[in-house]
Amino acid sequence: MPALNRDGLKIIQLDVKDVRFPTSLGSHGSDALHTDPNYSCAYVTITTENGKQGFGLTFTCGRGTEIIVLTIRALKRFVLGKNAADIFTDFASFWRAITNDSQMRWIGPEKGVIHLAVAAILNALWDLWARIENKPLWRLLVDMEPEELVSTIDFRYITDVVTKTEAVQLLKAKKSGKNERVKYLNDNGYPAYTTQVGWMGYSDELVKTLCHKYLNLGFTHFKVKVGVNFEDDYRRCSAVRNHIGNDKVLMIDANQAWSVNEAIEWVKKLAPLKPLWIEEPTSPDDVLGHATISKALRPYGIGVATGEMCANRVMFKQFLQSGGMQYCQIDSARIGSVNEILSVYIMAEKLKVKVCPHAGGIGLCEMVQHLQFWDYASLSGTMEGRLIEYVDQQHEHFVDPCIVENARYLAPKIPGYSTEFLPGTLEKYAYPNGSEWQRMFKEGIFPPPDEAELVN
Amino acid sequence: MPALNRDGLKIIQLDVKDVRFPTSLGSHGSDALHTDPNYSCAYVTITTENGKQGFGLTFTCGRGTEIIVLTIRALKRFVLGKNAADIFTDFASFWRAITNDSQMRWIGPEKGVIHLAVAAILNALWDLWARIENKPLWRLLVDMEPEELVSTIDFRYITDVVTKTEAVQLLKAKKSGKNERVKYLNDNGYPAYTTQVGWMGYSDELVKTLCHKYLNLGFTHFKVKVGVNFEDDYRRCSAVRNHIGNDKVLMIDANQAWSVNEAIEWVKKLAPLKPLWIEEPTSPDDVLGHATISKALRPYGIGVATGEMCANRVMFKQFLQSGGMQYCQIDSARIGSVNEILSVYIMAEKLKVKVCPHAGGIGLCEMVQHLQFWDYASLSGTMEGRLIEYVDQQHEHFVDPCIVENARYLAPKIPGYSTEFLPGTLEKYAYPNGSEWQRMFKEGIFPPPDEAELVN
Repeated sequence: MPALNRDGLKIIQLDVKDVRFPTSLGSHGSDALHTDPNYSCAYVTITTENGKQGFGLTFTCGRGTEIIVLTIRALKRFVLGKNAADIFTDFASFWRAITNDSQMRWIGPEKGVIHLAVAAILNALWDLWARIENKPLWRLLVDMEPEELVSTIDFRYITDVVTKTEAVQLLKAKKSGKNERVKYLNDNGYPAYTTQVGWMGYSDELVKTLCHKYLNLGFTHFKVKVGVNFEDDYRRCSAVRNHIGNDKVLMIDANQAWSVNEAIEWVKKLAPLKPLWIEEPTSPDDVLGHATISKALRPYGIGVATGEMCANRVMFKQFLQSGGMQYCQIDSARIGSVNEILSVYIMAEKLKVKVCPHAGGIGLCEMVQHLQFWDYASLSGTMEGRLIEYVDQQHEHFVDPCIVENARYLAPKIPGYSTEFLPGTLEKYAYPNGSEWQRMFKEGIFPPPDEAELVN
Repeated sequence: MPALNRDGLKIIQLDVKDVRFPTSLGSHGSDALHTDPNYSCAYVTITTENGKQGFGLTFTCGRGTEIIVLTIRALKRFVLGKNAADIFTDFASFWRAITNDSQMRWIGPEKGVIHLAVAAILNALWDLWARIENKPLWRLLVDMEPEELVSTIDFRYITDVVTKTEAVQLLKAKKSGKNERVKYLNDNGYPAYTTQVGWMGYSDELVKTLCHKYLNLGFTHFKVKVGVNFEDDYRRCSAVRNHIGNDKVLMIDANQAWSVNEAIEWVKKLAPLKPLWIEEPTSPDDVLGHATISKALRPYGIGVATGEMCANRVMFKQFLQSGGMQYCQIDSARIGSVNEILSVYIMAEKLKVKVCPHAGGIGLCEMVQHLQFWDYASLSGTMEGRLIEYVDQQHEHFVDPCIVENARYLAPKIPGYSTEFLPGTLEKYAYPNGSEWQRMFKEGIFPPPDEAELVN
């Protein structure tokens, strides 16, 4: 791509808002460990001197969003006053700087609160870049030369699996056919699966209704939450298997409920229901545990999926190296944004592991579609065994919501990374001062926040 | 121990303060990645109805401490109004609750900011417990029955390495001789090593002076920071080796500077200087990387040490399982306090890995001495190949500072966990309103904090 014109691209403002949705009222998003999430986000707006804007967010589950907001404020100084063109020209150095502040890295490093905050800021910068180039993010990535794309990645700590040179080679190897694959994506989109049928808090009747709804919508892959009570799991999974039939695919998700041996025993007993994968069987930090579980479940034809709480590229590297992950579930807002996610895709391609992005939380479907579209066009060149998670919640709040038709994500067409909120959403759901929250406090639906939790 | 009397033990207050020391002015604490730390902490005071108090802290490096403070406030609700006796009676359940809030665990879980905040609160609770029992913390632990001690630990995610039953057995196996070992500790203390001679920012002349100072103080083990520039490392390590002689022990510490292969090559070239261990050669999250490095350096007689940034017991478990860690450097304020640290000691004992605690940061020497004393008395029963890190900084701020004489930590005698600050320290170093900080802002030594970084 031609070099960016720096004129007017000095970043003069970075705003951050705490935005929460009362999803716990309907048990939407409930699972073994997250029993009452209020799907939320820290929402960043970056503005340049010439009025260009970038919008980025990190997903949260309600309480604690104020901590991410404060952390984003503490990281502002890395962005304000910088010229966006300079950031994009040497993006890996900027990434290293913002993730490795000599004092703040102690409270990370590159994990948890700090990394979620970094993700929101960098997501806004990638959105800004795509808007400046007047392209949806996936096309910005697809149009980059391999060297250019790889220049955004910090390879520290992953060179034992893939070097910069190898990364360029992997991308070059897929240059032929790229235009045809872009056309295919524009014409056909990308397959999705649904998690909507089996949230932990849903009644059997609702599960049945939803199975038929999503079958009618053309879905072939259905995910169900498990992990609290075995008999309950068996009953609910059997019901879903009956509703969808044996020609469709069932996945199960324990959201970290088990210790290693418990996971193996529990899932073996669910094996007759033929799940494709068990997702998050144990601690998201337990690489060796996942490898043990993967090995034990291989004879049953059940793979292990994980990644939504995988802290960074170093953890992904080990899951990929160890055989602990047969389905790599990158998340778009937990690790260090596109820069770091690209490195995970590249390691997965080298080690031949399928990437099936995690989505469902606020803005995640909107973001991961761009990444997976890029992967098909530029890196893996295949959709085989790959799907993007889809949950039909909160899309109505976005200017450019993802569109899923016939169980396929349609190609995003509007410039950017698709996570700009509609103005009405901020007015209603900004926490705690949005009009909907004020109404719910007044009506006693939620208690107002404790003073201790307020940033200011 | 007899059951606690609940009377008056309802917790009615939890205060938290941001306390920072301007250590960057003298390069004290500087290393490859932390070039200008201001040693700091979030400092918690818990008060019961009858006026009992517990003091706990988590160490930080300056910027970002305000984030920990806000997080501690968000976690207050787990503590306020609870009876402390009820917490201690079923400590593992309390631990699970505060580390796994259904909404806040998303921004962890059990790592980084959230876990550092939890550590400060739990450290204060352990201090409170020891004060109520009128014992220094190590004696509180030593006097517990194995079943009682183990009841404070959450075994989720580690039962593939050690179960509760096995933990009890390991403790029972060392019951005989415990009283003699307690007496030995009271009479002789526990060996220490010094990190004071080789901070990255120190001049050659200062390094020489300090080597001789610590030799004269009786130290036999000396640690030097490495990892920025090889020639510089070789020169500095050779100098220290010359100053201390071949009968003393040299350790080196890279503070995560390298990728895996780079670590191996760099340390091999320092092998002629006979370091005992290389500490933090690469990312603190890279279990498999550490295992690769350990294997490559074994023929050179160099072990791998790590742990100060190890996120939780699940990460420690893997380092211990994989052979990636020959020296287990538990930290007293990064993982979930004594409850979780005990589980790491127990896994290390089972897998026969030596524990050499990390210390040096604010209050860390004060805390880890208690843990290592307990380990010698009750669990490992040996000091062989084990030492406690010692850095002679900021001890003057504590009511009950650690005392190191003849390169040995002396047994703590005052009830509690030894991390209560003197009142004058809070008056001077509370950030940003303490009198020393106000003076330094006025004199232009440090800029005043940006409004964005203030909690309120």
